[in-house]
Amino acid sequence: MSRYLDLLEASITRRGGRLCVGIDPDPAHLPAAFSQGEEGLRRWCELLISATADHAAAYKVNLAFFEAYGSGGMRVAESIRTLLPSDTPLIIDVKRGDIGSTVAAQARALYDVLGADAVTANPYLGIGALEPLLVREDRFVYLLCRTSNPEAPEFQELRVAADGSAPEEALYLRVARLAAARPEARAGRIGLVAGATAATAMARLREVAPNAPLLVPGIGAQGGDLAAVLAHGETTGTPSARVGGSLLVNVGRGISGSETDGRYTHPIGRPFGRVSVRSTERAEHRTWRTHPHSRRDPCGLRPRQTSGDWRRGGSIIPRVPQGDLRGG
Amino acid sequence: MSRYLDLLEASITRRGGRLCVGIDPDPAHLPAAFSQGEEGLRRWCELLISATADHAAAYKVNLAFFEAYGSGGMRVAESIRTLLPSDTPLIIDVKRGDIGSTVAAQARALYDVLGADAVTANPYLGIGALEPLLVREDRFVYLLCRTSNPEAPEFQELRVAADGSAPEEALYLRVARLAAARPEARAGRIGLVAGATAATAMARLREVAPNAPLLVPGIGAQGGDLAAVLAHGETTGTPSARVGGSLLVNVGRGISGSETDGRYTHPIGRPFGRVSVRSTERAEHRTWRTHPHSRRDPCGLRPRQTSGDWRRGGSIIPRVPQGDLRGG
Repeated sequence: MSRYLDLLEASITRRGGRLCVGIDPDPAHLPAAFSQGEEGLRRWCELLISATADHAAAYKVNLAFFEAYGSGGMRVAESIRTLLPSDTPLIIDVKRGDIGSTVAAQARALYDVLGADAVTANPYLGIGALEPLLVREDRFVYLLCRTSNPEAPEFQELRVAADGSAPEEALYLRVARLAAARPEARAGRIGLVAGATAATAMARLREVAPNAPLLVPGIGAQGGDLAAVLAHGETTGTPSARVGGSLLVNVGRGISGSETDGRYTHPIGRPFGRVSVRSTERAEHRTWRTHPHSRRDPCGLRPRQTSGDWRRGGSIIPRVPQGDLRGG
Repeated sequence: MSRYLDLLEASITRRGGRLCVGIDPDPAHLPAAFSQGEEGLRRWCELLISATADHAAAYKVNLAFFEAYGSGGMRVAESIRTLLPSDTPLIIDVKRGDIGSTVAAQARALYDVLGADAVTANPYLGIGALEPLLVREDRFVYLLCRTSNPEAPEFQELRVAADGSAPEEALYLRVARLAAARPEARAGRIGLVAGATAATAMARLREVAPNAPLLVPGIGAQGGDLAAVLAHGETTGTPSARVGGSLLVNVGRGISGSETDGRYTHPIGRPFGRVSVRSTERAEHRTWRTHPHSRRDPCGLRPRQTSGDWRRGGSIIPRVPQGDLRGG
């Protein structure tokens, strides 16, 4: 394996689940006390991390939400690594990709300044252009393959012509095929991003890249199907060919963004014991419970239907004095 | 036209050329006095801008090089808009693209915090996913189409199947075709990035998107062919269908990065009057001269061969006291 996959596998075992907690501080979903400026942002991150640290096998920072706060937001982003347990991997979700000299600068920014163990990257400029991100033996790249958004098929599902040993297939499968064939993939340094909202695509992807570690966003606010992810997302290669951390399921707004009216009406007593999730596309309201890793539910997440209003279903915020929540 | 294209067209007319100056502060190419930390970075940006302001129709900030300096670098990036002439467009080159809620945060970061008039974006997640960047009537998006890097063909040149009115064609042409058909393109808010290193591709692109404003990187350090860009890059649509700013040629390292040993041995007297360019791929040494916009050379750039060593060919730095150059 590789440093990152060893780290991730150990963390999954320790936390008892494949849950990746998304740190996506969208001001539209934060209470007013946290959405105003750098200090509120910092306190929100600290609360989210302290409330979820016992359950998160990894954290995924969506850097755009920090960038939107300007350089003050980037100062907070620079402190995230120190706020996390040292043995919990930090993924920085930035979907970068550029010509080589620029990617080298991106590698410094993400790996060295922000302390990312892994990043997400976009293949459109060619996987080889990402070399400065891929070459670091102690880091890892999740390459965008089939993303979770409704506009993804426009290019990702285009049929591309057969070429050499590759058959005619969808573009996202060609991305997976070429990624899986690279030496960095065999060395355990390339994974794929495969959205939970495209379960059929995930099954096909596993035929092309049976051993690739997957990062799966789209559960929760985006309406992805966790059962399908669990059915199709695991590695299908021979056990000896498998690399660790084969499936990591990210939940972002589903945990942190379940509140929009500026007040937490039902702060939960047990941090992240119950998290309300609004599934916007299906108009369903679900409650997720964390529980120990098991064969039947390797994510450590178990969905069940609830009849309650998602706004009242609790939040990631642990029980703290009201004054603290309202403080600036 | 649109606010951005009006602004760009006026700037091109005023400056007498289609030159976009790249602000790419790669520490590997900056003298030691400028490469150390936030203050040196700020002074380098100020010098580059003051030396080129009379000639630049636009500026393109490669944000990764600022991100590599951490939050201090982002503070400098936040000041760039105020350092530029107010009527000169600022393009921020970031190649962003993500799911909609994240792109909304990117729009805030790029348009509102950094003051970009235009940005670059990656189409892999679907052009529609970029809506928060595209919807702003006072801004503009250059969509990656055929990039300048040697790894670009891996996906961009894949043949994609015919679909509806689109023939079988290379992926980058499908990107151009779908971009050109969007309402934001007709409203003058979408352009394309087409690398100067792929002249044949540029000619084909013009058949598919005859009116699209092009941003052309790859001249200078990347070895692109300016003559081919001028031959193929101009709009080919009917004059009445043309929108302004149809061709903008970026030169980054070719201007700012012509010095690596930490000293400027031949600071030029006339800012940007002569700029040494090393063409790494062709091992040629060229000197570019700015001159007024003309029919034959609408970029305001005229290449000619020189026999001098590029290291001695001067730089963008105007004549300043030696002490200033060495100061921290």
